Amino acid sequence: MATRALTLDLCASLEPEDMTPQSMADASPAKWHLAHTSWFFETFALLPFLPGYCVFHARYAELFNSYYVSAGPRYARPQRGLVTRPTVAEVRRYRAHVDLHLRKLLDMHDGLDTAEHAANAHSDAGPTSHLPRVLELGLQHEQQHQELLLTDVLHLLAHNPLKPAWRLLPAPPSQAARPLRFVCGVQGAHAIGHAGMGFRFDNEAPRHPTWLAPHALGDRLVSNAEYRDFIRDGGYDEPLLWLSDGWNAVQREGWRAPLYWSADAASSFTLAGEQALDPNAPVCHISHFEADAFARWAGARLPTEAEWEAFASTQALSGNGLDAGYCRPAAPSPGHTQVYGDAWEWTGSSYLPYPGYKVAQGPLGEYNGKFMSGQMVLRGGSCVTPPGHLRATYRNFFYPHQRWQFMGLRLAKDQT
Amino acid sequence: MATRALTLDLCASLEPEDMTPQSMADASPAKWHLAHTSWFFETFALLPFLPGYCVFHARYAELFNSYYVSAGPRYARPQRGLVTRPTVAEVRRYRAHVDLHLRKLLDMHDGLDTAEHAANAHSDAGPTSHLPRVLELGLQHEQQHQELLLTDVLHLLAHNPLKPAWRLLPAPPSQAARPLRFVCGVQGAHAIGHAGMGFRFDNEAPRHPTWLAPHALGDRLVSNAEYRDFIRDGGYDEPLLWLSDGWNAVQREGWRAPLYWSADAASSFTLAGEQALDPNAPVCHISHFEADAFARWAGARLPTEAEWEAFASTQALSGNGLDAGYCRPAAPSPGHTQVYGDAWEWTGSSYLPYPGYKVAQGPLGEYNGKFMSGQMVLRGGSCVTPPGHLRATYRNFFYPHQRWQFMGLRLAKDQT
Amino acid sequence: MATRALTLDLCASLEPEDMTPQSMADASPAKWHLAHTSWFFETFALLPFLPGYCVFHARYAELFNSYYVSAGPRYARPQRGLVTRPTVAEVRRYRAHVDLHLRKLLDMHDGLDTAEHAANAHSDAGPTSHLPRVLELGLQHEQQHQELLLTDVLHLLAHNPLKPAWRLLPAPPSQAARPLRFVCGVQGAHAIGHAGMGFRFDNEAPRHPTWLAPHALGDRLVSNAEYRDFIRDGGYDEPLLWLSDGWNAVQREGWRAPLYWSADAASSFTLAGEQALDPNAPVCHISHFEADAFARWAGARLPTEAEWEAFASTQALSGNGLDAGYCRPAAPSPGHTQVYGDAWEWTGSSYLPYPGYKVAQGPLGEYNGKFMSGQMVLRGGSCVTPPGHLRATYRNFFYPHQRWQFMGLRLAKDQT
Amino acid sequence: MATRALTLDLCASLEPEDMTPQSMADASPAKWHLAHTSWFFETFALLPFLPGYCVFHARYAELFNSYYVSAGPRYARPQRGLVTRPTVAEVRRYRAHVDLHLRKLLDMHDGLDTAEHAANAHSDAGPTSHLPRVLELGLQHEQQHQELLLTDVLHLLAHNPLKPAWRLLPAPPSQAARPLRFVCGVQGAHAIGHAGMGFRFDNEAPRHPTWLAPHALGDRLVSNAEYRDFIRDGGYDEPLLWLSDGWNAVQREGWRAPLYWSADAASSFTLAGEQALDPNAPVCHISHFEADAFARWAGARLPTEAEWEAFASTQALSGNGLDAGYCRPAAPSPGHTQVYGDAWEWTGSSYLPYPGYKVAQGPLGEYNGKFMSGQMVLRGGSCVTPPGHLRATYRNFFYPHQRWQFMGLRLAKDQT
Repeated sequence: MATRALTLDLCASLEPEDMTPQSMADASPAKWHLAHTSWFFETFALLPFLPGYCVFHARYAELFNSYYVSAGPRYARPQRGLVTRPTVAEVRRYRAHVDLHLRKLLDMHDGLDTAEHAANAHSDAGPTSHLPRVLELGLQHEQQHQELLLTDVLHLLAHNPLKPAWRLLPAPPSQAARPLRFVCGVQGAHAIGHAGMGFRFDNEAPRHPTWLAPHALGDRLVSNAEYRDFIRDGGYDEPLLWLSDGWNAVQREGWRAPLYWSADAASSFTLAGEQALDPNAPVCHISHFEADAFARWAGARLPTEAEWEAFASTQALSGNGLDAGYCRPAAPSPGHTQVYGDAWEWTGSSYLPYPGYKVAQGPLGEYNGKFMSGQMVLRGGSCVTPPGHLRATYRNFFYPHQRWQFMGLRLAKDQT
Repeated sequence: MATRALTLDLCASLEPEDMTPQSMADASPAKWHLAHTSWFFETFALLPFLPGYCVFHARYAELFNSYYVSAGPRYARPQRGLVTRPTVAEVRRYRAHVDLHLRKLLDMHDGLDTAEHAANAHSDAGPTSHLPRVLELGLQHEQQHQELLLTDVLHLLAHNPLKPAWRLLPAPPSQAARPLRFVCGVQGAHAIGHAGMGFRFDNEAPRHPTWLAPHALGDRLVSNAEYRDFIRDGGYDEPLLWLSDGWNAVQREGWRAPLYWSADAASSFTLAGEQALDPNAPVCHISHFEADAFARWAGARLPTEAEWEAFASTQALSGNGLDAGYCRPAAPSPGHTQVYGDAWEWTGSSYLPYPGYKVAQGPLGEYNGKFMSGQMVLRGGSCVTPPGHLRATYRNFFYPHQRWQFMGLRLAKDQT
Repeated sequence: MATRALTLDLCASLEPEDMTPQSMADASPAKWHLAHTSWFFETFALLPFLPGYCVFHARYAELFNSYYVSAGPRYARPQRGLVTRPTVAEVRRYRAHVDLHLRKLLDMHDGLDTAEHAANAHSDAGPTSHLPRVLELGLQHEQQHQELLLTDVLHLLAHNPLKPAWRLLPAPPSQAARPLRFVCGVQGAHAIGHAGMGFRFDNEAPRHPTWLAPHALGDRLVSNAEYRDFIRDGGYDEPLLWLSDGWNAVQREGWRAPLYWSADAASSFTLAGEQALDPNAPVCHISHFEADAFARWAGARLPTEAEWEAFASTQALSGNGLDAGYCRPAAPSPGHTQVYGDAWEWTGSSYLPYPGYKVAQGPLGEYNGKFMSGQMVLRGGSCVTPPGHLRATYRNFFYPHQRWQFMGLRLAKDQT
Repeated sequence: MATRALTLDLCASLEPEDMTPQSMADASPAKWHLAHTSWFFETFALLPFLPGYCVFHARYAELFNSYYVSAGPRYARPQRGLVTRPTVAEVRRYRAHVDLHLRKLLDMHDGLDTAEHAANAHSDAGPTSHLPRVLELGLQHEQQHQELLLTDVLHLLAHNPLKPAWRLLPAPPSQAARPLRFVCGVQGAHAIGHAGMGFRFDNEAPRHPTWLAPHALGDRLVSNAEYRDFIRDGGYDEPLLWLSDGWNAVQREGWRAPLYWSADAASSFTLAGEQALDPNAPVCHISHFEADAFARWAGARLPTEAEWEAFASTQALSGNGLDAGYCRPAAPSPGHTQVYGDAWEWTGSSYLPYPGYKVAQGPLGEYNGKFMSGQMVLRGGSCVTPPGHLRATYRNFFYPHQRWQFMGLRLAKDQT
């Protein structure tokens, strides 16, 4: 219920006007996020597991199903911003209705046991046959939408010349500049992927061996100051630094700097409105193409996801996430590697199934597997990732041209 | 003030969610219409004529200027639906602020004289030098946006599978079917265009002679029943009935019926929600291409605007407009020719300047002249045209592929 | 046969490579023009009128029908450049086959009588029922394609950085600069359109009265020097000079000068390769939008087609056409008004049917009527119009954004 | 010289008309292939290594450079079909000129030694500093273009309703249907990549360890008969079989069968014209999306490139390639695994750099590395791959939606 409440809390400063339009096909209205996460619980938990449950509205499934073909017809994604009814107030009632019945369902299953859950969660029977698994999936799903809700709101507000802030937010503490150092990585056979207790998405399994070549990783994320050097050195004008598709994107989109940067590279648009750029904070809102070009300019490369995970598994699971309350990347405190939080880190790995990957049975089998084409893996979480949603094995994924998430990079190098 | 109040009244049943998004580049959010019509008075009446007037907000000009290049930079039209702030409530305050100062302005000019106005309105000094002219232009402009607001709301609501109504509305009285008769038109030299007292837009002048060939006009609009016959006869499958550009549009857009018609041709989406089609009511929401193809199928043609105006000037200035309260086309009562109201009538005339047409000096010169390319003239007004906005010389204009206005047709024939 | 031979002669300097590709959807390969004009005679003259005629190839109708829906299926226009077989040599054989049988047909109708033709050409029976009419239409059609063939070749060659010439051509004689003078036009009721003996397309009839307002017309075309002044004065940067659609085209296409002009405005690409611009020669290869903006900048407007025709009917039917051998516009010799030849003149008139216009029965009814939407009328002919193809009533038509034909302008003014 | 001659030989049956147009942006005209492969030798061998060499034409570099940014400006790729000059005959002279000077260069380096070459080819000095390496690269490059020339010609001819054949070709011998069997693959640590003597592209190195999970591979390619079963079973109508991007492509492109298949699935368009489909021959001209959906339908998956290479390295290097003379995939003879030849096999691996991959210095560094984004690896060669161009380590790559190459699939399965 705390997770469910947080989603509403993120909307506390928004007006109905802010929660209705859709700024691009990749994004969704805040209102839609509120409704879709409720539809998810209604469809996969209440309908199958709560006897006698009646849906709140017979047509909401059509409106708020995202992409689950097996769960019925869906309203065209690029037109989500044109559905003005139900209103925000009605969607809040929908949420309350779902929450009320989720509480009933929990009461029915009083002995719902985490230990049992952990033991059974990944059994062959698949996620939809097991209530605790479904509930936990629903919560993890809701957390993903909490992050998307904020990045979509930021993208929408950025279209307004008046530059309205989502919320007043404290600035992260400033830190002294810290020279980038490279840390030797693990080499040889090394297993990655999720295998233990606790929740994981299907795409994190199975744990499997990989073979790591000798390499080193940067001990912090690339900073705004470093990225500014890349720009000043003509990075956006030198085709030899870019992947061919990346250079085409630069020309087609007219990219000259990260998304949301001001023309003078002095400030950027954030959830707290226009704010001065901290030179020591991680660069953010760059595409995979820009991350890759920066790395080449720096004589380095992006890490693979296996290299990243091997490193991350040695680091404390803490960082600048949503609970820090800044909602923007921050300069690293002394000794912190920024592995978790601040900005998702583009890797050089395509988003593909792990060896032996199995798609779940039932509609939730559409959750991850069908997107394993054309996207790149990002790792580590961002400044708006909800608490409890970070782990070393987590695989995020976006298309290489996308920039509206909190996306940055860490450098890697071959060791010879 | 009654005109200003009517605009707000049209929004009384709308939620902020309904007033924010933009369903296509041709349409605008209701909120934008509220703000733009206030900006118009602020820019062209208050700032030049009310000493010491301060704008309500320094950046609103940028947000709510539509297309007046000479009035400064404008926000990109296709993204009007992405400006969530100011909220609807703030825009209402903006309207109140403008109305308050308009009242002050009117008080200052207590002796404002209609007679003086009429005498001077079209003088060489141009519209912006003369306050009464500017105020009347502002009101006529607001009335145009009242109609656009309703057609844009209809278009937006039509995207919602839940089919919400704008408002509960009475159904027009049904009428017995009436066979279509052709009425002989004026022939030979005949003057058209506005020349008398009273308001007119620049595009209605100067009054000038034209030469009319022998012709006859239908004594009512083409009905839904007749259009259904055209469809059943394969009208949308026969390329020889269509203009070449029209046939391309049929293929590209997949047109099979008027906009908003249900798949079974039994009902259509209206401002009162989904409603049964009255077979005797005028067909509506068709493109110029469809009107032209229907006329060819019927062995007739569209009237020219001169033929239409010659006929209209003999008819009583009354019909099914916004004040009738139906907001949809109605079957004609006995003897009524439907010249005014119900549906704008596509003519066969391109929207071009009249001989001797002069663009007004100053920014208001952009009002009409620059759109005289690629559009077709429509005449007569519709079921959502505000009272006082109809006249025989009025020239409406849209691109031949557009359908979201209340657009229908009257047949014409050469007389030999 | 001379007309048929001229088409081949225009291709004498072309290689098969030059005759195959299509540089844009609006243009066609030279090979296609050779074949299509033969298909026209085969379909509309040989098959109906020559007993026992067998088509040269069963599938050519599909390949070389342009847009006659009623003459059967057609290959997609934008892919004409991808049909590499038949080769140019085979198409020449096709032409020879058609010409041979046309001769047979002519022999059969030895008494084919021009007088009879003139008397019957426009009878109700329609063009396809009358052989002389069909033959003359085929020749006029072929002449139209002769001009298109040259403009399409020019457009194709212009894509080659090596700037190959179609042919070596003499330069037109230079002339002293001549100040532009305005000549008073006819006013009041005035009939336009074709009514006499001799060939005309259906769109030139019927002759009908119009009413001309007092006006004056320029006594020559607008020159390159004058257009250069417009550019230097910032014409392409001033939105208030442009129609709204025109300004959008300027932004979208990046127009800064007429098509084919060099960046330094000193030369342009012609059928004779890159050639210095003669300041006194007419400006050419401009869109209707550019012509209209220039006229506004010059304090004038474009003539209507009725004004133009009234003037043209007083001028000698001679000018710089294809037979002059320059294939580019030339500076006017003393006293010459350039009404015929040099460059087609954009008018301010939309391409619409004349009052009482009747589409011909049969497939040839598709010749003109279905294009009466969205296009503007041009008058007067160009430097590549074949001899015998000019007359005062001729109506050419193109979309307002098109520039690849030889298109220029003459100024007009209201007289008060 | 044999390789150089083969390219011309492939064009022997083509007319200049066939060699000029470009059927899509992905393809190039045959004429362009002839010229580009000559430009490659001129630029990277003759100019640096033959003292006093003069280029054949000063502007050809601009016309025939493909994508080497560092080798100067390039003509826009999508318009290659609009460059009609030089003619095919002139391009042949260009080839002869380059060949003549290549012979001179070879004479100068009489002692050019394969052994030396092998020893030095991959030294740090990079490919452009070493003549034998450059010459071999030029030949391998020419072989790649031989395959592209044929696939581009096939694509172009397929646009012609007359269905012209590239050449009369013998049909491959028919074979009895052979049930598909799965063969166990290598598991655990296994090195892939090129390390030995002989030519390789930079993307095949370095040889490096990978970790293979237990798996099995099909002992032949998937056949037309099997793919027809997939279609009949509704494969193209079942979204759950498809990657999300793949399903979008199916909808957008209207795919219902492999490229070039007839509507009745009985024949397909080949380099020998329309030919009956051999049910036992490999399915071909399918996208990665179709290969992946088929594999999912069959309860299998695509192999990774490491799995494929481990298997291929155990198979004899022979198969149905260009020298077999069929130019279409053939049913497998008993015992043959079709690893080499017939059709490139889509793998489940994205085209990414191998660990430790180094881009070559100089312009040839653009050869492969900049395309490592968004493409999938294909392995094994096709029925039009030239002799000597097949090897187990060869990595071909295309975008997942592309179909015009000879592309098929082999199934793989996890072993548990």
